[in-house]
Amino acid sequence: MYTIGIDLGGTNIVAAVVDEKYNIIAKAKTPTAMPRSAEEIFDDIAKVSKQAMGDAGITIDDIESIGMGTPGTVNKEGVIEFANNLGFDHVPAEQMLKDRLGDKPVYIENDANCAALGEAYAGCGNGSKNFVAVTLGTGVGSGVIVDGKIVSGVNNAGGECGHMVIVVDGEPCTCGRKGCWEAYASATALINQTKRAMEEYPDSVMHELAQEEGKVSGRTAFDAMRRGDIAGIKVVDNYIKYVACGLINLVNALQPEIICVGGGICNEGETLLRPLRRYIESERYSVYSKIQTKVMKAELGNDAGIIGAAILGSVN
Amino acid sequence: MYTIGIDLGGTNIVAAVVDEKYNIIAKAKTPTAMPRSAEEIFDDIAKVSKQAMGDAGITIDDIESIGMGTPGTVNKEGVIEFANNLGFDHVPAEQMLKDRLGDKPVYIENDANCAALGEAYAGCGNGSKNFVAVTLGTGVGSGVIVDGKIVSGVNNAGGECGHMVIVVDGEPCTCGRKGCWEAYASATALINQTKRAMEEYPDSVMHELAQEEGKVSGRTAFDAMRRGDIAGIKVVDNYIKYVACGLINLVNALQPEIICVGGGICNEGETLLRPLRRYIESERYSVYSKIQTKVMKAELGNDAGIIGAAILGSVN
Repeated sequence: MYTIGIDLGGTNIVAAVVDEKYNIIAKAKTPTAMPRSAEEIFDDIAKVSKQAMGDAGITIDDIESIGMGTPGTVNKEGVIEFANNLGFDHVPAEQMLKDRLGDKPVYIENDANCAALGEAYAGCGNGSKNFVAVTLGTGVGSGVIVDGKIVSGVNNAGGECGHMVIVVDGEPCTCGRKGCWEAYASATALINQTKRAMEEYPDSVMHELAQEEGKVSGRTAFDAMRRGDIAGIKVVDNYIKYVACGLINLVNALQPEIICVGGGICNEGETLLRPLRRYIESERYSVYSKIQTKVMKAELGNDAGIIGAAILGSVN
Repeated sequence: MYTIGIDLGGTNIVAAVVDEKYNIIAKAKTPTAMPRSAEEIFDDIAKVSKQAMGDAGITIDDIESIGMGTPGTVNKEGVIEFANNLGFDHVPAEQMLKDRLGDKPVYIENDANCAALGEAYAGCGNGSKNFVAVTLGTGVGSGVIVDGKIVSGVNNAGGECGHMVIVVDGEPCTCGRKGCWEAYASATALINQTKRAMEEYPDSVMHELAQEEGKVSGRTAFDAMRRGDIAGIKVVDNYIKYVACGLINLVNALQPEIICVGGGICNEGETLLRPLRRYIESERYSVYSKIQTKVMKAELGNDAGIIGAAILGSVN
């Protein structure tokens, strides 16, 4: 038997047929093309799902369940209560999927939580049942897996670890709080930190690097650091310290087997992960325990969310 | 059938016979009388357990399982790896209990986690399966319950939410980090904050209150606030803001049904809880969701740990 995993994003809609070993058998994609009505978007979700089934040489009869990851919050009745960047307000997603694809079990979850589930089962977690995934992107996304299940919380909005304050009265965050981890550890935050350092250090090589690239990016400070640039080194050291702070908070609170770090900044690989591990090793609460949380790089990229969505049915 | 719940503390050893409805049928107690050898301490644990069974009019044959809460970390083999304030270093607690009480299933957990479990099932949680307990005492203790089970983590050291940094590079914490929630929200921290304000405000009524009580306590600033003292109001406002910060972090990360707040400071009751709820309501990430985490006062006091220990067997 197979399942369908759907990733409903602000930019693209992706659907895939996934087998029991978490392999993607076929995948189809179409632009979300916002702004559109929920009806139109769900018509396209059904279209790419059918296309993926066609490419896999199967029909809906071969499908055990359908899972979908979406931005925003989903309630227990399968209604997407709010999804800002889709313009969704109480969209009955579960019913709309059933109407278009047939009466199969449907599971809908927040996209960051789906990505965490995918990495836990099929990615760097390799079946880990106690797992936290953190994505350093535009924001800091995260998903928490305990005992093999997503911690979606009382209102399906769990796992918003990016919105844990690490600096009381610190930098303003998009969520309304001040000093959230996201305001220090996201790629957006790194870019702001880089820009500020560039103002302070007019001779830094970062000016040259930004000009070459056409913009200040999450790579600018890392590239400058590799050239021995003092300002670049300072920015990266500080940034890594902030990322580590939140990771250690999660280690102390949840002691997962694995924390998986993903997102664009993770392309830095060991340049990022090695110092993060050093911080965690020296600051974690259970510093003397033999078994410790491992910090790993996310493996599945965008497929994490699709695979996670596809297996929602089997872990629920 | 009954279970035995044991609370092994730095000051007292308490054992109780608990029935299936979480009622304590009989309880016995003896001083821990440190420093003593683990052998002597476990002899006393067995003694008070037998005394509680005698008082309940039952024998070990009526006991289904034995649970114990202990400071420090316990590994999966039932060995207390470290417990600073008991002087324990790799004490085979499970075996020592079986040797003394009979070959019953034995479960050993960290004491803060046991207390959380007790409150979740038998206290203010009233059976809640997704629950966080926070104790504002000498430190900030906590336990996390997900899906009805303690999140004890990969090395049984989970739930150390007091050691989540809320102020990067902030106040030094006993754990070695800087800026932990515990360093701002514990009773110890409140007392330090009170003392600092007293230095700054020599005319504050807090001087008088401290003299009456013979010391600066966790009540000093609250009492001063009730008398309209500016310094007292400032200390309490600040303290509550710090407590709220960590609570909101937990709400955003885990969205439990209930967060239970206990410890000496909670004797302030609604004076503490009302402003905490206001902070959480305005700052939580899922501010628009209908269902939200409730913040409640712990109900069971010291019995929480005993009842939690007693039910370890039924939730494992």
